[in-house]
This record gives sequence, C-alpha cells and structure tokens, in this order.
Amino acid sequence: MSRYSHLYTPLAAAAKPSPVNRILAGLKPDAIHLSGGFPDPDYFPREQIKEITNYIMDNEAHVALQYGPSSGYPKLREHIVDLANAKHQKATLDNILLVNGSTEAFDLMCKVFINPGDHIIIEEPSYSGAVASFRAFGCRMLPVPVDDAGIMPEMVEKALAEKRAAGIQVKFMYILPNYQNPAGVTLSLERRRALLEIAKKYGVLIFEDDPYIEFRYEGEELPTIKSLDDSGLVVYTTTFSKTFAPGTRIGWIVADAELVKCLSLAESLTSLMGSPFTQALAAEFSRRGYMREHIELSKGLYKQRKDAMLAALDQYMPDGVTWTKPQGGYFLWLTAPESRIDGIEMLKGAVAAGVAYRPGPAFYVDDSKGLNQARLCFSTVDAERITEGIRRFAAVIKELMV
Amino acid sequence: MSRYSHLYTPLAAAAKPSPVNRILAGLKPDAIHLSGGFPDPDYFPREQIKEITNYIMDNEAHVALQYGPSSGYPKLREHIVDLANAKHQKATLDNILLVNGSTEAFDLMCKVFINPGDHIIIEEPSYSGAVASFRAFGCRMLPVPVDDAGIMPEMVEKALAEKRAAGIQVKFMYILPNYQNPAGVTLSLERRRALLEIAKKYGVLIFEDDPYIEFRYEGEELPTIKSLDDSGLVVYTTTFSKTFAPGTRIGWIVADAELVKCLSLAESLTSLMGSPFTQALAAEFSRRGYMREHIELSKGLYKQRKDAMLAALDQYMPDGVTWTKPQGGYFLWLTAPESRIDGIEMLKGAVAAGVAYRPGPAFYVDDSKGLNQARLCFSTVDAERITEGIRRFAAVIKELMV
Repeated sequence: MSRYSHLYTPLAAAAKPSPVNRILAGLKPDAIHLSGGFPDPDYFPREQIKEITNYIMDNEAHVALQYGPSSGYPKLREHIVDLANAKHQKATLDNILLVNGSTEAFDLMCKVFINPGDHIIIEEPSYSGAVASFRAFGCRMLPVPVDDAGIMPEMVEKALAEKRAAGIQVKFMYILPNYQNPAGVTLSLERRRALLEIAKKYGVLIFEDDPYIEFRYEGEELPTIKSLDDSGLVVYTTTFSKTFAPGTRIGWIVADAELVKCLSLAESLTSLMGSPFTQALAAEFSRRGYMREHIELSKGLYKQRKDAMLAALDQYMPDGVTWTKPQGGYFLWLTAPESRIDGIEMLKGAVAAGVAYRPGPAFYVDDSKGLNQARLCFSTVDAERITEGIRRFAAVIKELMV
Repeated sequence: MSRYSHLYTPLAAAAKPSPVNRILAGLKPDAIHLSGGFPDPDYFPREQIKEITNYIMDNEAHVALQYGPSSGYPKLREHIVDLANAKHQKATLDNILLVNGSTEAFDLMCKVFINPGDHIIIEEPSYSGAVASFRAFGCRMLPVPVDDAGIMPEMVEKALAEKRAAGIQVKFMYILPNYQNPAGVTLSLERRRALLEIAKKYGVLIFEDDPYIEFRYEGEELPTIKSLDDSGLVVYTTTFSKTFAPGTRIGWIVADAELVKCLSLAESLTSLMGSPFTQALAAEFSRRGYMREHIELSKGLYKQRKDAMLAALDQYMPDGVTWTKPQGGYFLWLTAPESRIDGIEMLKGAVAAGVAYRPGPAFYVDDSKGLNQARLCFSTVDAERITEGIRRFAAVIKELMV
C-alpha cells in the first residue's frame, strides 16, 4: 500500500514490473542482445557530428540554442519537405511537424483524436511502444492479424463495419507498412490501396508509422500509403533514429495542414518543442549528404547480419519453429510451437544461456498471448555474435520442446 | 466545419488562435520584444559546446547517440544528485528524472495524478504554459491569489478545506517559489513552511517549479520547499534552459523514488526519453564549471537590465500604473488601472508602437481577466532597447488612460 495511492491515476497505479521484465533483469552483462531495436553504436557518425556542431555554433547558434516554434526547427522542416516529396508525399511546409521521436507522435495522436474509450485498429502483433502509449490513453484497440503481406484489409473492414453498426466511430488504424515491428513483414501494394479505400469509406484516419523505410535489403521500395492518398486521411510518421542517431530524438509527421496545426498545439503542451539543437544537426547532416552515406553503410551492414541470422536459424533451429524472412528493417519474428513449449521456460532458458530476445506479449493487446514468440533484432551486434546467439537460443528451444 | 470534426478530441476542437495572438501577429520585424522568456542569444556558450561535443564524440558517443533509459542519461542524473544536494534536497540517483524541458514535467504530472475533472491549486496569476497543459488534461484549477510574498497560504487552506468538506481530494498545488512567472515575486520562507504544513495536513502534493533559482540579483537565496520537506510530498522541477541553453530541452524532477518510477513510466510512453546527446553535453558543461561561469555572466547582464527596466518605468509610466520589483528571474508584472484603460487597445497600441509584451489573460485560469496587465521580460534585449521599449509602451498607456 503506497502513501500516494489516493493521488494516482490508473496509469500510475499500474506501474509494476512485468514477470517478463523480472526474468530479463537476470541477464548477464556479457549476454548477446538480440532484443532492443538499436542501431550498432560502433558506426555512429562521430566525426560528422563534430564537424556539423562547429558549423552550427558558428552560423546558427542564436536559433539552434534558443527556444523555437513547436512545429520544429524551420530549416529542418524545409529540408523534410524535400525528403517527403522525394517519396511523393506532396508536402509543403505546413504539412510537416517535428516531434521528440516517433514515440511523441503516438502521444500527440492520442491527444488530438482519442477520448478515453475510443476505438482504434491495431495490427496483431504491433509495436510494443505504440501499444503501451495507446493503452495509457484509454484506447480500445481492435487487433487485426498480420500475415506475410501485412495486415488483412478484409478483416479491417469487418471490424469497422461492426463498429459502425454499433454507432461507433473508429478513430484511426495504426499501420507499420515496411518491415513491420515486430513481425518483419511488408504490407503489399494491393493492401496499401485497399486500406486507403476502407479509410475513405469509413472516415477513419490511417496512422502510418514508417521508421525503417530507408532500410530495404531486397526488392523494390513500395510507395508509402501517404503518397497514394489524396483524401487527407493519412498521418505519416518516421524518424531520424535509424538514419542518423537515436540520441538526437527526432521524429517527424507529414499530414494535412489542419491536422499539423492541431498536433503542433498538442506538442506545445507536451514538451513545448523538440530540441532545436539536435534538429539543426539533423538538417545539416542530411543536407551535406552524410545521411545518405550513413544509410548506405548501415544497409550493407544490416543486410549481412540479417542473412547471418537467417542462416543460423536454418542451421540450428529444430523442426516446428518458424520465422519470418524480412526484406528490410531490424527484426524478424520467431514462433515456437505453442503446444510444445512453455514460453516462460523458453525465456528463462535464453536468459540463463546468455542470449536476449524481446518476448511476444508486449506486442499484443492481450498480453497473455505471444509467450511462445520472440522478436529477434539483427542490427545491433555483428554476424558472429548473432550466429552464436541463435545457436544458444536454438539449443534452449530444442531442450524444452516436447 | 472541418472534415475531421468527427474524429477530434475537445483539445483539438479548441485549437483556434486567440484574439490576443491575432493582434500580436501584427508586430513589425524590428519591434522590441519584452514578451518571451528568452535568454539573450548573443551570450550562448558556443565555444564551450564545440569543445564538449568533441569530448563526447571521442569518449561517450556509443551511449550519447544511442537510445537510453527513460529516467535519463546516467552521467547527468549522477551529476544532478550533486546539484540537488547542494540545495539540501537529500537526493540519491533514484530521486532524479530527466525530462524534455519542464513542460514535459507538467505533462507527466498530469498523466500520473490527474484524472479528467481532478482539482489542483494554482497561483493567480501563474505560468501560461502550465495553465495550458493542465487545462488540456481536464484539470479543474482552483486559483489562489499571489501578493508580494507569493501565494497566500491561508487561502490555499481555505480552498482545500472546502474541497475536503465536499469529499474531494485535491491532487497538487502548483507553486513557482522564486521570481514567479509572470508576477516576479518571491514566496517568503514563512509561507514556504506554511504550504508544506498544509500539504501534509491535506495529503496534497506540492509541485514546485523553480526555473529561475540561479538568477537572484538581490538578497539571500531561500531554501526550496523540497529542501524543507521530509514527507515526500514535494515534486521539484527545474531546467537547464536558463543556465545552459533552451535549445537543449533538458529539465529535471527531484521527487520520492516511488514517484520517480511512476513519472519515468509516463516518460517512456510520452517521448521514450529525452535526448541522451544534449543530456551528455549538459553533464560535461556543468562538470567543467562552465555552467557556473555562464550563470555568473548572465546574472550580471540581467541584473543590469532589470535595473534599467525599473528605472525606465519610474521615468516614463503615468501615475496609476503599478509594477512588481523582482529580486531575480526574467520578468516583472505591470498593471494598468483596469477602470481607466481598455486592455485590447493597450495591446494594439503597443504593437503599433513596435513593442511587445505578454498580455495578462494567458496567465489566468479565467482568461477574461488580466487584459490590463503585462508580463515584461528583461532578459532578452539590452538595456538601451529595454529603455526605448518602456518609453514607447508608457506613451501608449498615457495616451489611452482616461
């Protein structure tokens, strides 16, 4: 019983470590981390950041170190107009809002669109951070399964039709089109078009979250849903966390000008603004071509690591275990046969063997699901460690499977 | 009628420019700004930031550019333990949370403590940004007047007693103890102690917001309410925006460890974390003694400007106009006699004369109040421009007063 209980909201009262996190806390310091979605820190662009900081201090310090507009650093917003239009998103300055990482985009979307109890469509599985943020705002999440071509439009429409019949306006569908987190799958072009038609039919927004778009290792880039839209119903978000550095905390939104105004007001109440300083760095990093170079470097690295992970899975995993084969991104999604393994024991075994994965439950609205599943990240450690990590994990699964 | 109306929350539906902002939008580019609470950008520590960035890139880039814990960059949290204890706040690492500027602290406090319709005590007038954030969360704000010694404890107790009699638990009182924004007044030591006793009696938190503590120009520093507390009921927040640079977006919270855990969870859902990169810079800036130097430089500058503003007010303002005499901070608060002047005309006149102030209404819960009042900031422009700005503003008031 806490002495603050009489003051708490439900969010605060629910702040308890999960059983899964308690197990993960037992990891040894030298464990192989295939868990977090982190870029490899050995390749951060240190020298470029020194160079750019000198430039910003000599030329823009009076704005880069000052308070700025809630919509974000003007020079970076201008540059993002070009980035957005290179993806055919038909953007002007009024369509761009900078945020403190895409996570803040979840918060702002809820502030602008979610009254407690409002409904949204969410992929199953979906990104754990988004699920947690939406839950904190009292969203009712309607999960729609994802297969190898992404979320299934006919099931989206079924859910929307049911809610419409009950007089309920669903607010948005949260869609990760490329190399989905956690499933690693890519939404087909046909389904992108289908979702858009459904959005128009039901007057529902599509909240398109696309952090990995620059990290395709095979095949052709597909158009973003935003670029296919002429209805103003798509709110697109992406981030510099993978193309520059997570520590700069910069995401952005591309949306209809009216929506950007509302989201910007919400930003002014949430954090006043993102960091003009790191935003100034990102503008210069991209403008000088360093971002493009950094993406190419990272892509080469991560493609090789993805291939190493797939090869190790092929080599070591016992029959009955399945995994997705991503065309890009940071992750793949492994499923051990639910009827033949205890998910908690699988996690305990992995921790004891010195390998970490992200357990499935955090990616589900109903977090009793997914204990037999694992998100495996191939971006953070090198191919050799990945192979060793998968070898250890496979041995644990083989041992436990009945 | 917007095509998004069926999707909006009340916050979004209320996103309209105020009449006051429409008038302020008419300012000429060369106007004298006594409005925003901005440090003088001519004195930003550019060379030190270059030096420190080089150091961070060479020694800490792998953590400073990566994702980090929601509680904040460990090295900066460790350093803040020392800063907090220099103010006798009895802090350990578990008591410190880093946030995206103090504005995010308002957001997190609401997420952890405010269900829509919950009550808080707020100073009248109070900081406009806080009022707006609290309003967005559906807080019912109980305004208690501020005089020359700060908020009046007996009126705080009266409000709490009334609510208790009605079976209502007030959640916190939002207090700006030093050089209050906007009034410029300082809460007396006696009243700090009295508020603490009242907080204990009613089981209400004190949310102590102290951005200007390092900027005292006269008299002795008073102990923070946090340092007087042994009950765990004070949540203290301050910022590096004035002592380093606003563009780094770093604030921090000092609170009971249990509360820090809850607030940190809320942070993880709001922005995941503040920028590890700017937090690494702040740690090094302070550790090397540059922050102390920067504070001393700024204090000398702003004290002189405050004196210049007070002298100009004495010289130019007509009888009947009053203003506060701050011992520190960035602002003073001017009141023209309500019965003798039209506040809208006063603002229009100032804008036409090329001088900007922050009009009173934003600082009130009931924003029909305060049109005859002005927050005047003396930190951003030099003494000569301040004098000229006050001369222009006084001429407008003299012309309009009946």
